[in-house]
Amino acid sequence: MQPSLNGSNKIGIVGMGLIGGSLGLDLQSLGYEVFGITNKEKTAIRAKERGLAQVVSTDLGILSNCSVIILALPISQLIEPSHELINALPKQAVITDVGSVKAPVEQNWQHIHSRFIPSHPMAGTAQSGIEAGQKHLFSGRPWVTTVSNNTDKKGLKVINELALAIGSQWITSDAKTHDEAVALISHLPLFTSAALLKTVGENKNNSLLSLAKSLASSGFADTTRVGGGNPNLGVDIATHNTKALLSTLHDYQNAINRLEDLILSNQWHELQKELEKVHEIRPEFL
Amino acid sequence: MQPSLNGSNKIGIVGMGLIGGSLGLDLQSLGYEVFGITNKEKTAIRAKERGLAQVVSTDLGILSNCSVIILALPISQLIEPSHELINALPKQAVITDVGSVKAPVEQNWQHIHSRFIPSHPMAGTAQSGIEAGQKHLFSGRPWVTTVSNNTDKKGLKVINELALAIGSQWITSDAKTHDEAVALISHLPLFTSAALLKTVGENKNNSLLSLAKSLASSGFADTTRVGGGNPNLGVDIATHNTKALLSTLHDYQNAINRLEDLILSNQWHELQKELEKVHEIRPEFL
Repeated sequence: MQPSLNGSNKIGIVGMGLIGGSLGLDLQSLGYEVFGITNKEKTAIRAKERGLAQVVSTDLGILSNCSVIILALPISQLIEPSHELINALPKQAVITDVGSVKAPVEQNWQHIHSRFIPSHPMAGTAQSGIEAGQKHLFSGRPWVTTVSNNTDKKGLKVINELALAIGSQWITSDAKTHDEAVALISHLPLFTSAALLKTVGENKNNSLLSLAKSLASSGFADTTRVGGGNPNLGVDIATHNTKALLSTLHDYQNAINRLEDLILSNQWHELQKELEKVHEIRPEFL
Repeated sequence: MQPSLNGSNKIGIVGMGLIGGSLGLDLQSLGYEVFGITNKEKTAIRAKERGLAQVVSTDLGILSNCSVIILALPISQLIEPSHELINALPKQAVITDVGSVKAPVEQNWQHIHSRFIPSHPMAGTAQSGIEAGQKHLFSGRPWVTTVSNNTDKKGLKVINELALAIGSQWITSDAKTHDEAVALISHLPLFTSAALLKTVGENKNNSLLSLAKSLASSGFADTTRVGGGNPNLGVDIATHNTKALLSTLHDYQNAINRLEDLILSNQWHELQKELEKVHEIRPEFL
């Protein structure tokens, strides 16, 4: 199925990393003509070799005939886009992004482009960069779009059709609720997991650490995976979803303190009840 | 390879759950005659059907001719063993256990049986109970035995040979270091993970929770897996490894507070450095 888009079948993708590259592969499979932008000549050549887009360039001018443009850039570059990028976006094109924080993106872009539709296609692997893009990354995964009173209805429909065409599950939300929800189930786990690694890293008992290294297994691997990931992502999240993250961190500290109090005061029956509640919560989310 | 054991090829296993049942399967494959004890007739029948041991009974009398007896019981039953169990253990048999906390087990059992060798074979699945036992569970996994000045040297050698025969990696430690190491890489992650679920469970914003449920994916699944497990295990750990757990929880609270402070004060460069350190620590443990 190839949705009719917004006048042409030309789609621009700015950034050919994991998300941009994967979108390029899927959108070409659907019959679109994809124009990819990288920031270096070297990655442009590699993106072309990998077939991430039909046309790849470092020159934003290739976007001039695109009817949809996806900004697959890090959050910081979405929040403070360059003038060159802004000037290269055709007025009639529908623009969307892929950032994991939405309120500051929505707020800035409503003054930059009238047809900007904030998106957060939720998919990931441990990979990043020009080699990371892969087919079917978004299949069955949520594609969240945030809407407000100012949302361009036709633009929203275009992005909706694109998201469904690549197999995503379409979800709309207001930006604040989105940012609070991802703080809770994605950004908070990153920092609680990082704190676990920090605790281990700061232990000074060498014989204990040597034994701990022999004994660490799947439980430790799972609980520390997101905290041990790309440091830039953690900083980006903290910088741009600060309020929601701090609010969940505060609640988390209360939860840890409550469990600690029960252990300190040997309230095993109460601890059992807490762990039973927790045991029942998890399946609701997975 | 069938190690010669301690005079006969008869091994008793008290408890036919995940660990006991799995040991029964592997030890029979090695040619031993396995005598399994369950606490109910119904599970004895099922253990026999599953072939977890050649002889299964609720009668501890069947242990009388065993030269090695493995107590595959929950920690609480290891720390306060019944008189019936103690009286059923032959004086010349080598006795071991499978508990994940070692200091209190070692301390109690040195007064109960002179040939007790404290063990912690580290392996697990999400399963428990009579249906959980499986072959090769211990292959390539650590088998920790804690040693002290009072350790029976011949008994230690018997357990060593058994552990190697089922494919485990043999590790010895003193009990205190063992308990602190597992607190750090296994017990602490359980409680930090439980606190994450508790934070989510206590959120009262229904529209946020509804969205969060749609968006939760592998990152949330991984970080909450151990915290959402069997509540009894968490209580057992907290009850019997209290001091080491509280010490790591204290360090963890400091780590979380430090990350929170950096975010509160917008020290993004310092946060980047912290997350880079954390990123480098993880591979040392896995």
